[in-house]
Amino acid sequence: MDSAAGTNEKVGFHSWCPFLIFYSMQKLKEIAQKIRKIGKDDPRRVLHSLKVGLALTLVSIFYYVNPLFHGFGTSTVWAVLTVVVVMEYTVGGTLGKGLNRAFATLLAGALGLGAHHLAALAGEKGEPILLGVFVFMLAAMATFSRFVPEIKARYDYGVTIFILTFSLVAVSSYRAEDLIKLAYQRLSTIAIGVATCLCTSMFVFPVWAGENLHMLVAANLDKLACSLEGMGMEYIGEKMESRSLEGKSVLQSYKTVLNSKATEDILANFARWEPGHGRFGFRHPWKQYLKIGAVTRQCACSIEALNAYISTLQQSEQTTTDLEFKQKVQAACAEMSKETGKALAELASSILEMKWSSTAGKYLAMAAEAACKVKALVPAENSTLLEVLIAATTTSMLTEVVRCTNPVIAAVEELSRLAEFKRPEHGRNAGAESPPHVVIDIEK
Amino acid sequence: MDSAAGTNEKVGFHSWCPFLIFYSMQKLKEIAQKIRKIGKDDPRRVLHSLKVGLALTLVSIFYYVNPLFHGFGTSTVWAVLTVVVVMEYTVGGTLGKGLNRAFATLLAGALGLGAHHLAALAGEKGEPILLGVFVFMLAAMATFSRFVPEIKARYDYGVTIFILTFSLVAVSSYRAEDLIKLAYQRLSTIAIGVATCLCTSMFVFPVWAGENLHMLVAANLDKLACSLEGMGMEYIGEKMESRSLEGKSVLQSYKTVLNSKATEDILANFARWEPGHGRFGFRHPWKQYLKIGAVTRQCACSIEALNAYISTLQQSEQTTTDLEFKQKVQAACAEMSKETGKALAELASSILEMKWSSTAGKYLAMAAEAACKVKALVPAENSTLLEVLIAATTTSMLTEVVRCTNPVIAAVEELSRLAEFKRPEHGRNAGAESPPHVVIDIEK
Repeated sequence: MDSAAGTNEKVGFHSWCPFLIFYSMQKLKEIAQKIRKIGKDDPRRVLHSLKVGLALTLVSIFYYVNPLFHGFGTSTVWAVLTVVVVMEYTVGGTLGKGLNRAFATLLAGALGLGAHHLAALAGEKGEPILLGVFVFMLAAMATFSRFVPEIKARYDYGVTIFILTFSLVAVSSYRAEDLIKLAYQRLSTIAIGVATCLCTSMFVFPVWAGENLHMLVAANLDKLACSLEGMGMEYIGEKMESRSLEGKSVLQSYKTVLNSKATEDILANFARWEPGHGRFGFRHPWKQYLKIGAVTRQCACSIEALNAYISTLQQSEQTTTDLEFKQKVQAACAEMSKETGKALAELASSILEMKWSSTAGKYLAMAAEAACKVKALVPAENSTLLEVLIAATTTSMLTEVVRCTNPVIAAVEELSRLAEFKRPEHGRNAGAESPPHVVIDIEK
Repeated sequence: MDSAAGTNEKVGFHSWCPFLIFYSMQKLKEIAQKIRKIGKDDPRRVLHSLKVGLALTLVSIFYYVNPLFHGFGTSTVWAVLTVVVVMEYTVGGTLGKGLNRAFATLLAGALGLGAHHLAALAGEKGEPILLGVFVFMLAAMATFSRFVPEIKARYDYGVTIFILTFSLVAVSSYRAEDLIKLAYQRLSTIAIGVATCLCTSMFVFPVWAGENLHMLVAANLDKLACSLEGMGMEYIGEKMESRSLEGKSVLQSYKTVLNSKATEDILANFARWEPGHGRFGFRHPWKQYLKIGAVTRQCACSIEALNAYISTLQQSEQTTTDLEFKQKVQAACAEMSKETGKALAELASSILEMKWSSTAGKYLAMAAEAACKVKALVPAENSTLLEVLIAATTTSMLTEVVRCTNPVIAAVEELSRLAEFKRPEHGRNAGAESPPHVVIDIEK
């Protein structure tokens, strides 16, 4: 495509017009493929889209069907509005938003009516002033409450609706004649909207946040297991020198685990709104999934450190003199890696099947045994060598930290160029170069 | 408090009534302290709450002041609604939501009118059916588009408003007589709402997402620097054996860096909506901050691995024979740690002051020099010892991975108890015990 675009500039409109069409067609094809992939990756997304359409059409019927319309009047728009805003991908999300909306509307509506009556006592001139003061105070206090982490996590949407409804009732009440009737109509339409959302969300191909969390935590454990087993097989084992780790997607799969916290938190939050479903009771310990997630990420972190160390080791050339020793250590390392991988895979399937097995502990014990093998290989008659080993490990890990700082310097240096940071006068020319790249080969 | 509650059950109402009051007072005090702390931690939160109140009161004036009210009718509620929903903590958030709302309303309104005219051609009976089909299709397609990551990140709110407005216009159009006038009123009130939000958000103590991101990235680098310098001083250095790392909050500060991705992503997303402000131009390279964040987290990961290793090392007893060697290695390690910390601190202040300095690279070079010192300490006349060192490091890091798996097993085991997983018949009694805890002391 690039070469075609390059020659186009010299030729006339008629000759590059087909290219333009071709290019647009290519782009459209790409987008279509991307959309198809999104749908294929999780077909529940297509179903969810159809469900939203269904819920909206159902609610519109209230408007189209004449007798109902005469009962509720223009308040029906609130049902449409509720459906659009409340409908979430998971049942827990919909339920949480729906309950938040319903209760916040009720509470704020009652408070708004109270404020209206109180303000009416102040006379015709005082009323708008007093109402303005009420709106200001309530809105400021409610907004501040959103900074409390517990409220932010569970009732953020409810607080928004609370401010909204209170302001609307307080403001409208100054004009509307038949306030109670209006409030009744609005509440019923919101209830209709929430009910429609809940029914479509729970009874038509439901997507449960709890189940998603359950799957995600197990999948993350499985990713670590795959990475470790892959490393044991391909990498630390026989083929250690021949291949690079960078290209292996299986070995890199642990990386996504490192950033899974936000998704897990949201899912756990939604899951707590959900009623019992399938294999999960109403009071299923969703918090425990977050704990598993936290220790899983710690595990991923240590895999990341190991991975980084081995990658740098591969890049440095090594001459092997004691081939037998090296092979024995590699075999033991491969076993440690594989057995730990098996333990994690066992845990993942234990979660998936909701069936505890103590096999994971056995695998881990075998990994520990393999570690002891390495210990036996090292001639540890004198304790000086032992100290050397500890020193070597600590230094290697610290060296890893130092190495990790290199890309940070490079990234900040790039920012300093992009954002045009000030540079010291004398170093203006030198600063344009890339930062000094520190190469440490402690074991070479 | 616990002992008081324990004795209360035996005594009558009159004697525990004061306790109840005392307890409630205590609780209220705690909540008050918590709220005060939230406000003190970032006084901009209090200002933001007042700003929301101000914007809402300003918009209410449109309702209270009579001449304006007669011009816009009941559409004024849309201005209130807009203010409540659009007003965000940062300028970028408000701007992004406001623009999304404005353009989505415009586009969906036009499409809704088109759909109305098209449906009118189908006759009185066909119109509601055709409109229902339109609403269903548009809502389903728009909902599906929210699964595209790029749209989700920047236009999620816009898509919601698009579905909302299209449904409302399509549904209302079937009834409302003066559709164009209504659309004009609604658009103007939304514009008034968005303008009010933007003015209060941008001109009254603005909170810029870009500036927050800038500060956050620098603060994260600084946290790593503090941890490393602290480790170098207190820990790897002279006082290695005497203290435990767990209690030191300075040394643990790097942990929050590991989970900073979600916040950084949101801030960078908001920052892209913001106009130039202060030291930041309109096209400030916000994406580069995300890159710095990513490598910072990698660095934090390797610190975590090092930290975990040293913690376990501290717990195992060691007899020192060659005190001089040990001290030399520790001194070199302490220097590596301190110099890397200095490099990171230098980078943090370089970002904060927006002034590039190449000192960070020099510090890192000194860390590398210290690493060479350790290398010189190890008698490396024969290459067998070198291989032993590599083997030791790899094994130690792998052992770390194995150790990290222990808490995962424990966490899953706890879940299996809490959620009442099935247990194999023969192991029902054994399963109640805690899982086997593997202890590996490779270097002992």
